[in-house]
Order: sequence, then C-alpha cells, then structure tokens
Amino acid sequence: MKIAIQGIESSFHDMATRLLFPDTEIELIMCDTFEKVTECIENMSADFGVLAIENTIAGSILPNYNLIDASGLVIYDEVFLNIQMFIMALGGQTIYDIDEVHSHPVALLQCKDYLRKLPPQLKIIEGKDTASEAKKIKEGNLKGVAAIAGKQVAERFGLEILDSNIQNEKDNQTRFVLIGKEAIAPAENANKATLKFELSHSLGSLSNTLQMFTTFNINLTKIQSLPIVGKPWQYAFFVDVMFDDYQLFTEVTKVLKKAVSELKILGVYKHNVENTPSQLIQVLENGK
Amino acid sequence: MKIAIQGIESSFHDMATRLLFPDTEIELIMCDTFEKVTECIENMSADFGVLAIENTIAGSILPNYNLIDASGLVIYDEVFLNIQMFIMALGGQTIYDIDEVHSHPVALLQCKDYLRKLPPQLKIIEGKDTASEAKKIKEGNLKGVAAIAGKQVAERFGLEILDSNIQNEKDNQTRFVLIGKEAIAPAENANKATLKFELSHSLGSLSNTLQMFTTFNINLTKIQSLPIVGKPWQYAFFVDVMFDDYQLFTEVTKVLKKAVSELKILGVYKHNVENTPSQLIQVLENGK
Repeated sequence: MKIAIQGIESSFHDMATRLLFPDTEIELIMCDTFEKVTECIENMSADFGVLAIENTIAGSILPNYNLIDASGLVIYDEVFLNIQMFIMALGGQTIYDIDEVHSHPVALLQCKDYLRKLPPQLKIIEGKDTASEAKKIKEGNLKGVAAIAGKQVAERFGLEILDSNIQNEKDNQTRFVLIGKEAIAPAENANKATLKFELSHSLGSLSNTLQMFTTFNINLTKIQSLPIVGKPWQYAFFVDVMFDDYQLFTEVTKVLKKAVSELKILGVYKHNVENTPSQLIQVLENGK
Repeated sequence: MKIAIQGIESSFHDMATRLLFPDTEIELIMCDTFEKVTECIENMSADFGVLAIENTIAGSILPNYNLIDASGLVIYDEVFLNIQMFIMALGGQTIYDIDEVHSHPVALLQCKDYLRKLPPQLKIIEGKDTASEAKKIKEGNLKGVAAIAGKQVAERFGLEILDSNIQNEKDNQTRFVLIGKEAIAPAENANKATLKFELSHSLGSLSNTLQMFTTFNINLTKIQSLPIVGKPWQYAFFVDVMFDDYQLFTEVTKVLKKAVSELKILGVYKHNVENTPSQLIQVLENGK
C-alpha cells in the first residue's frame, strides 16, 4: 500500500502512518510539501495520505484544512502522536562541541527555551524537516552539527542523543488524519465527523446552526473559520462534532443543508485517542 | 513615536503603519519575528506595534492571536491592506535574465502559478521577508537575482519591476492590528471587539454563548478555536464581534463572564475597512 506523507522515513508522519497500519506493508511516498501529499492522492501515485491537522501547542494547521477541502479528499481516520523533541549529533560529541543546530522552524520554535540556554555563538538554522536534517548530518558526516527531531530519527540514522525532551511544553501532541480519494461507508463504530459549511451574513446564523447540533446531542469539539477565497472577509466554518447515533447525525446534516449556503462532510470516522489501527483495509475488502 | 513591526522599511507592515499614522513621525523598530514585536512593546523599547492578524487567502495568523493574548497586549485599531505582488530586479534585465527568485515563503506560495510558468532551471529560494530580499539584491548588486515583494519595495530600493500583480488570487487583503501595552477607553465610534473565552466541556456551551450575542444584536464576524496550552484538546475561542451599542456590549460581556471559564477583552475598536487614520494619539492626549 502506498501512503504519501510530508517528510522522510522515521519522521513524525511516518510514525503516525505506522500507528494506523501496524501490520501492513507500506511504501512511503515522501513529499516535500503538504500540497504534494494531496496531489499524489489525486493523481493516484499514492493510495492514501497521512496529514498533520492540529497540534496542542500551535493549534490547527489551517492550510491543511483547505488542502483537504479543495482537493475533495475524504478523512477516514485520525491518530494522535506525542511529540517529544531530542537533540542529536554524530557519536563521540557533547553539546559543547556543537556549533550549529538544524531543524524544521516549528521544531526550533517548540524548543526555544532550551536553545536560549545554549552559547550565543551557536547558529540556529531552519531546515526542511526534522528527519531530513538528521539524515544530512549522518550522510555528510558533519561534525559540530546537531539536529532536533524525534527519538526514532536518532535510531534510524545512528545518531547520538545529546539531550532529551527539550521542547518547552512537555505535553505536545499532534493529531493526524488519514485521507484518500474515495468516499466509503463509515466504520460501524464511527462517532466523529468533520464538516464544512458556509453561512449568509445574517445575524445569528452561526449560533442557530450550532444550536441545531446541541438540540440533537451532537457535541461540537472544535471550530475554525477560514476565509472563502474570492469572497473577501467571508468565512467558511470547519467543525469537528461527536455523536452517539450515526443515523440521527445523517438526518440532522440533511436538514442542515437547507439552512446553510454549503454543507460538506469531509469525513465520518471513529474518535481515536486510543490510537487503534485503521480498519480501512478491512472496510475496503468487505466492500468488494 | 516608536512602532515595532516585523520586517524592514517599505514592507507591508511599514505600509500598514503609515496608513494608521499618516501625519506622525514614526521611528520603526524593525524586528525579525512577530514575537520580537510583542517583546519590544512589553519591554517598552517600542510604544506600539503593528501586527498582521489575518489574510483573505491564508486565513488567521493563529500564532499572533496567542502572542497578543499571552503578552497581555491590547488591540487599539485595525487597518486593511491590499497585497499585490511584484517581481523586481536590478535595472536593465528582463525576466529571461533571472536565475534565482527570492522571497518570503508565503509570498512565494501566493505566486505559485506565476512561478510555475518560469523555466524549470530557475531557483526559488525562501528568504526572511519580502523587502529584505530586495534590499540584499540592491546592496549586493546581484545580477540574475529577482525578489518578489510589494511595489513600494521596488521604489524604495530602486529596483525595476519585471512583472506586476503576479499572485494567484488577485484579491489578497491582509488585516493588521495596532497593539500596545496599556488599556485605554475605546474611541467614541468603536463598534467592534476581539474577545477570548474558554468553555467547559458541556454539550452546547459554545452555541449557548453565541446565542447570548445574537439575543443582544451583537454580530459575530469571526471565530477561531485555539488550543489551551497545558490542557490537551481543550480550546479557547477567539471571536470578533460587531455591535451598535457599546453600553449594551459591556453589559453583555459582564454577564457572559459568569457563564464562561475565562473572558478577556483583547480590544474594542472601530471597524475600519475605510482605513481611516488611528485616533490613538488624540485619545492619549485627551486622557492626559
């Protein structure tokens, strides 16, 4: 099975993919950007994709909502990863031998307090992603250079960890979604959905819409407004909801379609804080 | 008056500052990052700051909401800028002489369709910000290198425009806010506010809160949920509202404080699509 991710092997996206498919042989399609991930699914050079969608510190990755929406892709599943950062370098060095630290800008930001304590002459260099910077150190045999990345990256590329859990906030989780091209019937235990809708400018239209959910015991867990491109200062709303009764949920969305300008269901899936493997393969096989 | 911005003279932040204070002598405190802008205000090396907060294509700049909130700063005013991108280089060259294009990653992204049509051997290089890249070309007398930036940057650094309005979406506006340290009484014509609140997990709490606004003719224009750091998967809500009656608005917020976990008014100001100059200086002088 071909899965498109942003980044390379041992990256956090790779980790998330393994959590979703622990027993499946995966060929990673490694992409430079999130946009290329959705392109790979659209042009079928990948079967599915795994995409970070929000983080407990940075919040929503808004462009990725737009990518899923614009490419007409579907969310099948979610998975959560505890992101811990490690600083790593070639063996036989200590933190005092390091002149340069490379990583993805977001990772550098998350480790700001740690980096501030290092000598001021140490250069902080923004790179493409966490794992690639570590790979470069190994392949180029670069002494005096460290990378900030996940523990698994040090293991994958044989680097030595100089310091552990160096990010400012010890609780740092990222939510990833599994996306693909074809709509499928949701799993039997599905209890969560991601919706997008647009509203007229009339006063109270958002609160009326949300009240519909409340009336039918559909719990809103998250809301983002994103600009509608081509309609300045008008917003589309992306919401995550949880429900007990899928039948009732579909009936409510049917009615809701009449009240909002556009309602799109981006995905119906199981709320998955336990990180249980995806049932997508079984669902697809049963459907055949 | 010292105003902190991200970027250098002639940048879009500089333009936004001039719109707010057309008749005031401004000393720009030029910062590398948005974070340094808020730090400059906190440590009083700048009187105020101007900060981009959302864009009609990319949406909210979520980290800047967190920066304003975390640093306890206040929003005094807003201003809107039409962002048009131009590709520029040293004089006497055409687009066919260019081997490298430099700009801020977001500007490059906004001009993706244009860049795709250029010869594939042309290198696209991500730089610090739009204006700085142009400045480097001028100062280094770099032939064969172009920058993507606003028109005013070409004028400021004496570069020649090779192509105009090259961004994908012709309507590309950014909203900026004027921020500072001290709470002041809002201007008499204030009709907009930015609020932050946190909610319990109980079903319907968001729709009930928004319904309060609807009941009192307070129109919600924008809503974002941002993670509460240290409370995984719990969200704070940042909303923009508009009202006709400031007195009623303050009474509603007083009541609302009893219904939500935390309510903070980040700013009360005039909705300013006309880009009228800020009255802040007059307000401060009257207050003395």
